[in-house]
Amino acid sequence: MQRALATPRVPNFAEWYQTIVREADLAEVSPVRGSMIIKPWGYGIWEQIQRQLDGRIKETGHDNCYFPLFIPLSFIAREAQHVEGFAKEMAVVTHHRLKKIGGTLAPDPDAKLEEPLVVRPTSETIIGDAFSRWIKSHRDLPLMINQWANVVRWEMRTRLFLRTSEFLWQEGHTAHADASEAMAESLKMLEVYREFAESVLGIPVIAGEKPANERFPGAVNTYSIEAMMQDGKALQAGTSHYLGTHFAEAQNIRFQNEAGELMPCHTTSWGVSTRLIGGVIMVHGDDDGLRVPPAIAPRQIVVVPMLRNKPEDANVLGYCEALATALSRETALNDRIRVLVDTKDIKSADKRWNWVRRGAPIIIEIGPRDVANGQITYMRRDQLRDGDKVQSASMPRDKFIAEAAGILADIQVRLFLAAKTRLESNIRSDIATFDELAEYFSGGGDDEDTAEFRGWVRVSWARPEGAALDEIDERLKKLKLTIRNAPIGQSAAQLGKCIFTGAPAVQEILIARAY
Amino acid sequence: MQRALATPRVPNFAEWYQTIVREADLAEVSPVRGSMIIKPWGYGIWEQIQRQLDGRIKETGHDNCYFPLFIPLSFIAREAQHVEGFAKEMAVVTHHRLKKIGGTLAPDPDAKLEEPLVVRPTSETIIGDAFSRWIKSHRDLPLMINQWANVVRWEMRTRLFLRTSEFLWQEGHTAHADASEAMAESLKMLEVYREFAESVLGIPVIAGEKPANERFPGAVNTYSIEAMMQDGKALQAGTSHYLGTHFAEAQNIRFQNEAGELMPCHTTSWGVSTRLIGGVIMVHGDDDGLRVPPAIAPRQIVVVPMLRNKPEDANVLGYCEALATALSRETALNDRIRVLVDTKDIKSADKRWNWVRRGAPIIIEIGPRDVANGQITYMRRDQLRDGDKVQSASMPRDKFIAEAAGILADIQVRLFLAAKTRLESNIRSDIATFDELAEYFSGGGDDEDTAEFRGWVRVSWARPEGAALDEIDERLKKLKLTIRNAPIGQSAAQLGKCIFTGAPAVQEILIARAY
Repeated sequence: MQRALATPRVPNFAEWYQTIVREADLAEVSPVRGSMIIKPWGYGIWEQIQRQLDGRIKETGHDNCYFPLFIPLSFIAREAQHVEGFAKEMAVVTHHRLKKIGGTLAPDPDAKLEEPLVVRPTSETIIGDAFSRWIKSHRDLPLMINQWANVVRWEMRTRLFLRTSEFLWQEGHTAHADASEAMAESLKMLEVYREFAESVLGIPVIAGEKPANERFPGAVNTYSIEAMMQDGKALQAGTSHYLGTHFAEAQNIRFQNEAGELMPCHTTSWGVSTRLIGGVIMVHGDDDGLRVPPAIAPRQIVVVPMLRNKPEDANVLGYCEALATALSRETALNDRIRVLVDTKDIKSADKRWNWVRRGAPIIIEIGPRDVANGQITYMRRDQLRDGDKVQSASMPRDKFIAEAAGILADIQVRLFLAAKTRLESNIRSDIATFDELAEYFSGGGDDEDTAEFRGWVRVSWARPEGAALDEIDERLKKLKLTIRNAPIGQSAAQLGKCIFTGAPAVQEILIARAY
Repeated sequence: MQRALATPRVPNFAEWYQTIVREADLAEVSPVRGSMIIKPWGYGIWEQIQRQLDGRIKETGHDNCYFPLFIPLSFIAREAQHVEGFAKEMAVVTHHRLKKIGGTLAPDPDAKLEEPLVVRPTSETIIGDAFSRWIKSHRDLPLMINQWANVVRWEMRTRLFLRTSEFLWQEGHTAHADASEAMAESLKMLEVYREFAESVLGIPVIAGEKPANERFPGAVNTYSIEAMMQDGKALQAGTSHYLGTHFAEAQNIRFQNEAGELMPCHTTSWGVSTRLIGGVIMVHGDDDGLRVPPAIAPRQIVVVPMLRNKPEDANVLGYCEALATALSRETALNDRIRVLVDTKDIKSADKRWNWVRRGAPIIIEIGPRDVANGQITYMRRDQLRDGDKVQSASMPRDKFIAEAAGILADIQVRLFLAAKTRLESNIRSDIATFDELAEYFSGGGDDEDTAEFRGWVRVSWARPEGAALDEIDERLKKLKLTIRNAPIGQSAAQLGKCIFTGAPAVQEILIARAY
């Protein structure tokens, strides 16, 4: 069967991923090592993500700010003293001028910075410094801010959207008077991420707490939402940290309480990034290309006029434009419908397949017969094929305009439900020993890119910490496995013995291969 | 008379500017040399600017993309060969890792980059490189993209919003098949900027062409919009460049035309930045603080409950919340009204003055008497005082809700008209010789910060170029003057002799002191 993508998901999921990123016009490798160029269709998805998540961040009481790209090395050094396991792969600015030296442009030795500057890998230190100046009294609390920004972490092996040296994200940072309020904040933002992932991205996730060895350096608790990709691997799609007073002590973020005592604040931080786009691809893509959930599709309906360089073309074009205007007055999923008439000067069949690969939710093709009959012919990207055959349907124009919002909402729900079924039917909870775990995962093949599908495993454990946890981590690493999280809201019933230690279990955790 | 700001505009406008940036909570100097922290109220203004300008950029057919922060040094070197007068003050990344050396964190000598990376001062080179790959045929043209990003240009003397090492901007880049289409594009975007500045920022501007010596390095034509600040100085508020085939030749941006010939593209670029916020401050601020035009106010109406720690407080608060809900259902200036109830735990008089300094367009104060009478008491920030006295008015609640949109629209128009009157009445066109020019500007005092108000001068000139223009530039520089632009759409009538050369004039230009 002819598919729109040259590479199917099976047997090489990694190659399929690269193909879809390229063929759906999402992004490309740039001439700068480790950095990507996000193209209009990919950036358009990011803009929809930003807009809708930003609304939720503001509704929950956070204000946006902007902090400097550069961080003085002394700030990083101070954090490194306080925080174990601190990553040091960062872009370092050492000069502020170029100069022609022997005919070649080079950093000017006379313009060497007294103190090197680090390109922010995250803004904890520079925002903490501002908090220490902004917060004086309990009246200044809670202080709740967010930033949309680019950050840089030097990466040796990159994969577009999933792991690049530069990426785009939002980072929330808040300070509170006590632990319970700060903890409630970090759980609230975890819930904002969960709801956003499910209802906007159409990605079902499991929210839970990370084990101690996977915490953000310096955090007291780290929470995540985890999503299942179509190769069975987990993708950490968002994190939220309760930082205790650890960062506040290191950065002198203190407030005078009502009794007049100087107390350290309890802080949180939380973030999601352009990595979410990688998740959208790997959850919703198929062998014909991407399928973008309507809520984040830059264009939800694309109208392709079937032009033949004949006099009736003008009629067809006019019909398409009027249709687009009428559709864009309608509301779907709480926003005006986003419509495009694709008038590019290429064959209409090529346009159809371009939009199939990009994953526009609804593709309408209009020819002279449609115009004559006052109808439209459309394809739903989520139901592109009936067996091998591409399926399309015709409908009177006005009926379609009236039903378009409903169809878009239906596509949104069906994409989510399909992914939810996949997630729920691929978490094994019948594994009781480490040997069974090893056996389940060892069957899939050794090459990560072509390994057979293996889902997640939910097992009981005794929540060991310290050296015992490190040892478990090592054993899992040999199987290329990690503990994803301990789902929140789990019932304490039916806990058996710890799969690692045999001690009585205290909670369940998810184990999976991961990105 | 008691004013809300400690520093009035006269006699030290620069000090007033610093005070207002601080007291209106817009931004602050950061611990990173030359970089600023944009605080919620300042960043909120930027978000409004972004949203509304972005809509206009998309409506005119441009797609947003994202390109890497870092630019390989070789790209910059190639541009430096092609472009004269190229600035070399840039942040240079030379290492990708930190390491503890003798107990101190420092750039790791083993992690020195083979090729240094420059933090983008603008993205011409990296976007041009992408264009050279994306454009093959005339069918790929025009290619019209835009990017919202942070950029860095090392600055020694900084002033918040006006000149900082890092700033936020948008940069549009387009490629076209011929000169006339590219020229039309650069003039179209100039017009987009003019209309946006006037109708959204409430800042009247004069659009025109820059003289040859003020062109963007490598541009064939550079256009600008120029705004008059309250100290009479000009602020360049946006630029648009027609780049000819200069950059396309250097970067190999070529297309096959319909006849099959390989031709260089004609390119344009255009941008505005967070500098616009500096313009808003210096055009609309007064001795009580900022006055934000409603179209870009993060909160257009702020409701201050007058609480006294008494039982009736709950009533007052409930009344305020209900009022805010009702107001936020109304539409003003094409958007839902943005309302805030300020429940911060500080004195209500302090809240009032905070919002006066920040420049919220309408401030409502609600006390028990207002609740009892079903009324509201409000201040218009554009008509804060009657003589020295602060003026407020009362109105039945429902009447105010019905009229709020009209009041906001009225404030928007009045701020614009006041600035327009100031601009128009302060451009002298009666100066015919260089001596008169020198005399007019010499009277104001030598200290830039405390100089008396001097407006702009509109004179005729013969449009000399090359060495003759350089010499004029030198003469003007001694008077701290620059040529701002040659207004577009000027009539050819009544041109006298060139004020500099005595030759027959060909156009009029604006001369002013500038930021």
